[in-house]
Amino acid sequence: MSTAGQVIRCRAAVAWESGKPLSIEEVEVAPPQKDEVRIKILFTSLCHTDVYFWDAKGQNPLFPRILGHEAGGIVESVGEGVTDLKPGDHVLPIFTGECKECPHCLSEESNMCDLLRINTDRGEMINNGKSRFSINGKPIYHFLGTSTFSEYTVVHVGQVAKINPEAPLDKVCVLSCGMSTGFGATVNVAKPKKGQSVAIFGLGAVGLAAAEGARVSGASRIIGVDLNPSRFEQAKKFGVTEFVNPKDYNKPVQEAIVEMTGGGVDRSVECTGSIQAMISAFECVHDGWGVAVLVGVPNKDDAFKTHPVNLLNERTLKGTFFGNYKPRSDIPAVVEKYMNKELELDKFITHTVPFSEINKAFELMLAGEGLRCVIRMDE
Amino acid sequence: MSTAGQVIRCRAAVAWESGKPLSIEEVEVAPPQKDEVRIKILFTSLCHTDVYFWDAKGQNPLFPRILGHEAGGIVESVGEGVTDLKPGDHVLPIFTGECKECPHCLSEESNMCDLLRINTDRGEMINNGKSRFSINGKPIYHFLGTSTFSEYTVVHVGQVAKINPEAPLDKVCVLSCGMSTGFGATVNVAKPKKGQSVAIFGLGAVGLAAAEGARVSGASRIIGVDLNPSRFEQAKKFGVTEFVNPKDYNKPVQEAIVEMTGGGVDRSVECTGSIQAMISAFECVHDGWGVAVLVGVPNKDDAFKTHPVNLLNERTLKGTFFGNYKPRSDIPAVVEKYMNKELELDKFITHTVPFSEINKAFELMLAGEGLRCVIRMDE
Repeated sequence: MSTAGQVIRCRAAVAWESGKPLSIEEVEVAPPQKDEVRIKILFTSLCHTDVYFWDAKGQNPLFPRILGHEAGGIVESVGEGVTDLKPGDHVLPIFTGECKECPHCLSEESNMCDLLRINTDRGEMINNGKSRFSINGKPIYHFLGTSTFSEYTVVHVGQVAKINPEAPLDKVCVLSCGMSTGFGATVNVAKPKKGQSVAIFGLGAVGLAAAEGARVSGASRIIGVDLNPSRFEQAKKFGVTEFVNPKDYNKPVQEAIVEMTGGGVDRSVECTGSIQAMISAFECVHDGWGVAVLVGVPNKDDAFKTHPVNLLNERTLKGTFFGNYKPRSDIPAVVEKYMNKELELDKFITHTVPFSEINKAFELMLAGEGLRCVIRMDE
Repeated sequence: MSTAGQVIRCRAAVAWESGKPLSIEEVEVAPPQKDEVRIKILFTSLCHTDVYFWDAKGQNPLFPRILGHEAGGIVESVGEGVTDLKPGDHVLPIFTGECKECPHCLSEESNMCDLLRINTDRGEMINNGKSRFSINGKPIYHFLGTSTFSEYTVVHVGQVAKINPEAPLDKVCVLSCGMSTGFGATVNVAKPKKGQSVAIFGLGAVGLAAAEGARVSGASRIIGVDLNPSRFEQAKKFGVTEFVNPKDYNKPVQEAIVEMTGGGVDRSVECTGSIQAMISAFECVHDGWGVAVLVGVPNKDDAFKTHPVNLLNERTLKGTFFGNYKPRSDIPAVVEKYMNKELELDKFITHTVPFSEINKAFELMLAGEGLRCVIRMDE
């Protein structure tokens, strides 16, 4: 029996207030409107950004809200004007979009869509400024336009990547955000050449995805930098060949890296968001050709500071957002890389839990355990 | 009668002490040693760097010295081991070199040769740590390994670009430094696409060469930024379409540029060396794809400072040295661009003086008049 055009009642994990365990509730999910798609979520994984906005420190708290943005699912129905997708398509919802019409989407160089660029403060759909979720008629806020901690969700078509239906959604769901962000930062932006050296600052999931990009690119040395030495053992599985703990030196870590590499690494990727790590990541690249790429999100009062001669000596500094991938145009090809075994994803998935135990995923992340916990929606 | 292997007596303009007029003297020029070339200079032009080291404020003064580094000449004789050049070749001596063997020379991405990178403190030849110039046996210091304010000079073969003998040396001599620096910063590093907008900070000779690079690249808007409005009229000849004087705004000039371009310019090139201009040049480029290129040399205590989100929003910041050209490999092709009328040089040459009046060239530059003054060595 088709559910198209009907309100769907299903389970969702609702965050009622900041920092309190999510509560599994029956919610109503309205049909998709113009340019929207309703998706049955099969797998979703937990990312730091979910925890950050659940904790809601230093932001406008927006509750009750359905969090979640890394996921894989199947299109249930489509709204008016949607021609690219049809019921049954396998998709990844993405936290940032691609309208295909704005100057950014028309530029080969940018993925920062004017219409659908990430907006963490928005809790409604852009079509009519209203939510598609409710409980007994009372609206529940969306998160990043994705809200994947629900068995069904409504997403703008510009935020939906249609992927190979053969791809296992319980694995490729992690490409919705973190893994693509780190991997793309290396392969699309830092672009190390075969045999070059790469330093990765921060060995969490995004940093390890950046290391995976370096491994795939044929880097000769992958130097992992982290303040937590317990991360080093795990990082070896991701091709990291050497480890540097800034705490072990009584000089700036960039000086140590310049010494161990005879002048600096060829490329660096910063995945912590610490301003000091950003400066170190820039100053540790080789003059003449070094490229430093910033991925981590800084505090709003931070200032990046360096001596301009570091730039004039032909170093390049650039930032990236979602690994410079355009969600709809580029992510399907990243899924193919996984299918062709060019890119490994399974090693990122260290835990799985049933949907009913979603709070366990939060506990694991807060305890710093593992990389990605995949949540099985049908359990 | 061949002069090879002989000491040549000729005229040179000697700087005896900082800030005092040069004095034309008869000097002895020793024959070239291993890996060196002796060049008969026909034309030399004056660049700010000559004046800066003549003035010798804030540096180690090194006198007596023969300045000069933008020039064109003909090889008179070559030293042991020189196979790339022979007497009669038309050449441009360059202030920085290309040994073709170090990691920088072997990298496609760098021109910052380890052996022959610019060294403003060195007054002797690297071969034996001695000068090839003397007056009555008393050594006179070299400058940048070129010392072109002499009818004959000795230069390391790695600092000599062999060019098309049809090229007029009184014009292409300006490609030895300033014009290549600015032009290359745009075409090799900023790389604007046809139809894009480019902001140029500083409308002196290097900035106008950067504008020439934007014109040649087919930029749709070339926005000139300078504190001196008297430079605007001249800049029109170089394709600059709009002018912005930071003094005319009571907000940072980058905000004004972002407003006039609906989000920022596609590319910017900074040619002043002022730290504030560097920051403005970076912050005025468009998010998603903007590229800012730093050319101007800053004070040694300056700090480049920006909010890291400016980077994370996919802006690129990079510096360049000598327009990223490798002196021997690339400069001959830039001369060809002039020969093919792709690149205009004549408009940069606003004055010429005979060698006997070289101090007039200094006076013009100190008065801020004109762009390049070419000095004719045979008069």
